[in-house]
Amino acid sequence: MHFHIMTLFPEMVLEGLCTSIIGRAAEKGCISIEAVNIRDYTLDKHKKVDDYTYGGGAGMLMQAQPVYDCWKALDEKINLRRSIEQKSSKNFSRTKVIYVTPQGEVFHQKKAMELSQEEDLIFLCGHYEGIDERVLEEIVTDYISIGDYVLTGGELPAMVIIDTVSRLVPGVLNNRESTETESHTNGLLEYPQYSRPEIWHEKKVPEVLLSGHHANIEKWRLEKSLERTKERRPDLFATYLKMNSP
Amino acid sequence: MHFHIMTLFPEMVLEGLCTSIIGRAAEKGCISIEAVNIRDYTLDKHKKVDDYTYGGGAGMLMQAQPVYDCWKALDEKINLRRSIEQKSSKNFSRTKVIYVTPQGEVFHQKKAMELSQEEDLIFLCGHYEGIDERVLEEIVTDYISIGDYVLTGGELPAMVIIDTVSRLVPGVLNNRESTETESHTNGLLEYPQYSRPEIWHEKKVPEVLLSGHHANIEKWRLEKSLERTKERRPDLFATYLKMNSP
Repeated sequence: MHFHIMTLFPEMVLEGLCTSIIGRAAEKGCISIEAVNIRDYTLDKHKKVDDYTYGGGAGMLMQAQPVYDCWKALDEKINLRRSIEQKSSKNFSRTKVIYVTPQGEVFHQKKAMELSQEEDLIFLCGHYEGIDERVLEEIVTDYISIGDYVLTGGELPAMVIIDTVSRLVPGVLNNRESTETESHTNGLLEYPQYSRPEIWHEKKVPEVLLSGHHANIEKWRLEKSLERTKERRPDLFATYLKMNSP
Repeated sequence: MHFHIMTLFPEMVLEGLCTSIIGRAAEKGCISIEAVNIRDYTLDKHKKVDDYTYGGGAGMLMQAQPVYDCWKALDEKINLRRSIEQKSSKNFSRTKVIYVTPQGEVFHQKKAMELSQEEDLIFLCGHYEGIDERVLEEIVTDYISIGDYVLTGGELPAMVIIDTVSRLVPGVLNNRESTETESHTNGLLEYPQYSRPEIWHEKKVPEVLLSGHHANIEKWRLEKSLERTKERRPDLFATYLKMNSP
């Protein structure tokens, strides 16, 4: 799977992502991450990429031209690679272009699973007040928000989506980092977990977890998951009850 | 405002955050960002920080001891700094410790505003399957989730929260990056925006924005905000209607 990021801060994205698990997956060749600098595509002689907003208002807006030309070059390169890989020159389905914005559909685990089926994904990261609407209309296929809060730019949200999607790509996680049991896969929050030693700061690991009795352990964990979800996320708990009622 | 991050990947956090706007704010002295390596506090001779989970299950768990000792050293350092700054040795309110986890309260703009009032914030970033429950009970004050999806670790979500909170700290943003008009401050998504040139790819900037008629521009923008919110986020639209009905 190939991730392509259009940004004004390519080094931020690469350095932030390429440490840790995602960096290791890129080295292994499970995924590839490429950051393209939008500024390289401006036709302005001062390398400017932003200007004032029509109708007034504070803040600068990223202009259409550099964003469009950057996307066009990237999209053509992706199509060329695909045509070489498949040894034919037929047309391919258009590569998804994700604009990360507080105005998008709210990201969730199901969307991550959907995106992990793609061969290529292009991310467009805005900065300042945003991007000229006309170029968004022309190139963006998906508007995604990672939550109801506002960041200084699209880079961190793009990194969040790439991290979430990458770990669903086969081969990315090793067995230390299993996706087997985790919050949001069965609609419940995860139960509490304990590791060695058995007693720490006078707190003992719950007896049942030391019993070796598999069925009891499963029962205890489900109870704790239900308890915790009910307490911390009544919204998820209500949905779970509705889905699992007879 | 001082951000302290407890992590196994300090370089990832620092490199990812210190580019762009947040890095500039740190240089100006509006905020400070410090990353502490939890591994430096393990008493294990092989520098191990994780172990198997009691009761079975795939994946490794971060152990209580290194996390606790790392927090204790950090908390003492913060209290010492505060006592020197205030030239007294009285007790201070405990510094908030935020554990970023899919099991937390869902982060939103209002919570960011609340957190931006703090003098210090400590972030605890988990990795692998999570952290031993007993140390969480002892040190964590706030469990926060950035959304209903699962990441490879707590570093990116901590960076997202730090970015969101930082930009609310006075002096961090310059006038290119105003917080004046933006999604989620008035409960609506932002209207479309346009910059030069007036015509791009045969698309014209909406007439009203070129009119200079301030009241009409405001009216158009509110209409577009309402339209967009209704279409893309019916949940926010319903809340807005309820709050603004007579």
